[in-house]
Amino acid sequence: MNQHLHLITLGVGDLAVSRKFYAETLGWKPSAASSENVVFFQAGGVVLGLYPREKLAEDAQLSNRGSGFAGITLAYNTLSEGEVDEIIADLKAKGVTILKEPQKIFWGGYSSYFADPDGYAWEVAYNPFFAFNEQGNLKLD
Amino acid sequence: MNQHLHLITLGVGDLAVSRKFYAETLGWKPSAASSENVVFFQAGGVVLGLYPREKLAEDAQLSNRGSGFAGITLAYNTLSEGEVDEIIADLKAKGVTILKEPQKIFWGGYSSYFADPDGYAWEVAYNPFFAFNEQGNLKLD
Repeated sequence: MNQHLHLITLGVGDLAVSRKFYAETLGWKPSAASSENVVFFQAGGVVLGLYPREKLAEDAQLSNRGSGFAGITLAYNTLSEGEVDEIIADLKAKGVTILKEPQKIFWGGYSSYFADPDGYAWEVAYNPFFAFNEQGNLKLD
Repeated sequence: MNQHLHLITLGVGDLAVSRKFYAETLGWKPSAASSENVVFFQAGGVVLGLYPREKLAEDAQLSNRGSGFAGITLAYNTLSEGEVDEIIADLKAKGVTILKEPQKIFWGGYSSYFADPDGYAWEVAYNPFFAFNEQGNLKLD
């Protein structure tokens, strides 16, 4: 098993609501691999999938029971602190729930969090210690 | 906000246990950006971070309360059904919890799931409809 994470699937309560959020509020284009049952987005070097939560649990042979903090966060990294401010201001104007206003963080970065329709926490962060490759993916040493 | 997911962070119960699982059981090399407080892995076109769960919740200004199914799954995609079998057999021999034995799926794929130390569900799947790019990342139309 090589050092690779190819796809992340979010189990969602209402696929139509989530599809609309990612496609319209965030402005992402669904992949042609999407259908009425599942939605895929090419999200840079990884694929983000949306799938009904109960079906996702069933696929993994897990109980769908679960509540509260998912324990996992997703992050969008920017090229500057100002870009964090701009993104969050835009999302706030669109009615998106901001979990944490943009602010400097103790480790030297600048970050904010918003929530998707299921409450999954997305961080929008500028990390001066992280670099990007030509594809726009993070490239760590 | 471009169509990009740069980093996924798993909130973990015991950072040393999780670091050992990803670094030794899966054989992944931690990035030089890692420290005693956080671990990062370059996981192809995305970065996987490990961070104590209570600190992750605090960072997002969320309550750490939460239990059961996280609602999010991670996936490693293979080039063949046989590769799924090989990976799962190797992990099983190492004592990893297999949530779902490798099997054909209704949509035409072949998949299995294992659990990491916090119970996060990793799918190992062969999807004949998905292609890879030169970097080994999924590349959807």
